Amino acid sequence: MSTASGINVAIIGVGLVGSSVISQLTSVSTLSSRLHIVALQNSKKTLLSTASSPLSFSSSSDWKALLSNSPTSALALPDLVLELQKITKDTGRHTAVVDNTSDEKVAAFYPEFLRAGLSVVTPNKKAFSGPIELYNAIVERKSNDKAGSSGPLVYQESTVGAGLPIISTLNDLVGTGDQITKIEGVFSGTLSYIFNEFSTPTGGNKKFSEIVKFAKENGYTEPHPNDDLSGSDVARKLAILSRLIPELKQALPKGYLSVPTHSLTPAPLADVASGEEYVERLPEFDADYHGLNKEAFDQGCVLRYVGVIDVQKGEIKASLETYDKAHPFASSLSGSDNIVAFHTKRYSQRPLLVQGAGAGAEVTAMGVVADLTKIAERRG
Amino acid sequence: MSTASGINVAIIGVGLVGSSVISQLTSVSTLSSRLHIVALQNSKKTLLSTASSPLSFSSSSDWKALLSNSPTSALALPDLVLELQKITKDTGRHTAVVDNTSDEKVAAFYPEFLRAGLSVVTPNKKAFSGPIELYNAIVERKSNDKAGSSGPLVYQESTVGAGLPIISTLNDLVGTGDQITKIEGVFSGTLSYIFNEFSTPTGGNKKFSEIVKFAKENGYTEPHPNDDLSGSDVARKLAILSRLIPELKQALPKGYLSVPTHSLTPAPLADVASGEEYVERLPEFDADYHGLNKEAFDQGCVLRYVGVIDVQKGEIKASLETYDKAHPFASSLSGSDNIVAFHTKRYSQRPLLVQGAGAGAEVTAMGVVADLTKIAERRG
Repeated sequence: MSTASGINVAIIGVGLVGSSVISQLTSVSTLSSRLHIVALQNSKKTLLSTASSPLSFSSSSDWKALLSNSPTSALALPDLVLELQKITKDTGRHTAVVDNTSDEKVAAFYPEFLRAGLSVVTPNKKAFSGPIELYNAIVERKSNDKAGSSGPLVYQESTVGAGLPIISTLNDLVGTGDQITKIEGVFSGTLSYIFNEFSTPTGGNKKFSEIVKFAKENGYTEPHPNDDLSGSDVARKLAILSRLIPELKQALPKGYLSVPTHSLTPAPLADVASGEEYVERLPEFDADYHGLNKEAFDQGCVLRYVGVIDVQKGEIKASLETYDKAHPFASSLSGSDNIVAFHTKRYSQRPLLVQGAGAGAEVTAMGVVADLTKIAERRG
Repeated sequence: MSTASGINVAIIGVGLVGSSVISQLTSVSTLSSRLHIVALQNSKKTLLSTASSPLSFSSSSDWKALLSNSPTSALALPDLVLELQKITKDTGRHTAVVDNTSDEKVAAFYPEFLRAGLSVVTPNKKAFSGPIELYNAIVERKSNDKAGSSGPLVYQESTVGAGLPIISTLNDLVGTGDQITKIEGVFSGTLSYIFNEFSTPTGGNKKFSEIVKFAKENGYTEPHPNDDLSGSDVARKLAILSRLIPELKQALPKGYLSVPTHSLTPAPLADVASGEEYVERLPEFDADYHGLNKEAFDQGCVLRYVGVIDVQKGEIKASLETYDKAHPFASSLSGSDNIVAFHTKRYSQRPLLVQGAGAGAEVTAMGVVADLTKIAERRG
């Protein structure tokens, strides 16, 4: 075992997810011996490990003080790369950058991280669901599938379903030669919660607007509920998954904006800038939502907001659909859980299903840390 | 990229699963360039790749003829190891042994494979569910968690749930510091089928013995149904999973035989040697099975044969349990699917669920091939 074993980890973004990542890395001894935190950066400050003063966190309180007291203002990303290359050289260890932000600018910089030999792990959906040019630049520069290479790797498990094994399962299916026929799922925890409350096998007796109001007040939605109800988060996840399916190469969305997406926001509210006003006016449309729900119920069905990738039809869409009361999306789903059904040539009679919490700092961090472990296994 | 990139694969056992493994390895170009088959062995013959005549399979018909026409009788395992070490040296590539048998003698040899530097991938449950001494010898010699090592690796995804992400999910949960509180699941495809038919949310109107008879006649059971109804297959899977949970270290079963297991075989039939006689006499006990089912139904429940690992109670058992009609094991399960619920500190409100076909040659082979890919990523 080399003294330089393991890898370095540079963490950009130390909010809820970033804090959980640090907490997991420092509290599990099998991780702290293999994954060495060498940099922390938030919007204000950067904290770097140096030979004379290596970072060594033992508790969660430590690093927050160290970062805010750091004399170094937040480095521009090209400067951060130079510092990380220096650390890579000094330590003799491979370095991975963890992007815990949801920042487009950080995402746009992934090709440069990779060009500099730095691996990338992230729950940030922007790079994988945005412009296809950025995505292609990342795919070109990553070495995940290059046998015998020691180049940089990219892992993105937490971009869909947080810690749930969704990306890895899709990659294993595709990588072993299975053919995906359809992926269908409830990909938004917020919309899962709303429809699990609104449209139940026994009908449901709550008003749509009241469920949204409660969800907003309890932090289940973004500050502006339209950010969830527009379906764009689901569209992003569909863009991410569809790009991992080789058969879709010709039909790939140029970005999540080209995924046909059914917005649940009533047209008259589309331009309401304030989340509060949005929630206040939503009751005007309760009759419409109720009508949809009743129509589904009369057919023995429930409403679910789903993402569908139908490979055979070449169709990708985020939309409100009806499911029979006995369907797992109706009968088995509850709370704000995600559920994903992989229909494939091998899993043809019944799909492979993965279900569970698809959001939250700890489970998102788990996906990130598991990805880092995989990089340590390959480059440590 | 080195010319020696990728790894060598030596395949022991070329029945249904082995044939599917070979088919996947040879038909997917991204696999055939990284996973090089260098040996095939069944109970009669061994076929080895040599420098002058390297194996190169392009179709599934090829290798069967080549193997049966091979002049080499099946090698004893120590001799196979010597040949594989020679091939490893000649090719400059790491070598993994795939054991597709269910043979205890092959399983008992894993420590020797590892000692010789050969990785092991297998759907064979014997080594991981058998005597704890054998298991410990394997754990000691594998390098999976040793940073910076280039030693041999062990992967066993297909030992539970075939290609379903069960072992990998458990390893990721544990590896990132989550605490498993309970694992509960339907682990036997055969018993899943039997109880999904027998005990439905609406009661079920089929006789237990008739379902077993139909299942036997259609190949859903082992030739002797007691091999499924005894619960020992479930006990093996529980032994395998429990050994991956650090908190259970003190309460670990010495082997699957020490897992408390409720046999569904009526005591008077326990010693019936013939599967045919067993099925013929089973109707004598239909009233008993019916009584259990009715009792469950009267409580709004169904019967499911499950495996439970309750970490908090330190209890591991394979048994017939009742589940509310709305529980995913009742409402969402169908056919011969497996379903596994991981209850953890992070997934505490609702479990992480994985569901799908848990048996069959193609999905079992998929788990094997995905494991081989992981070894190629780390040692290729």
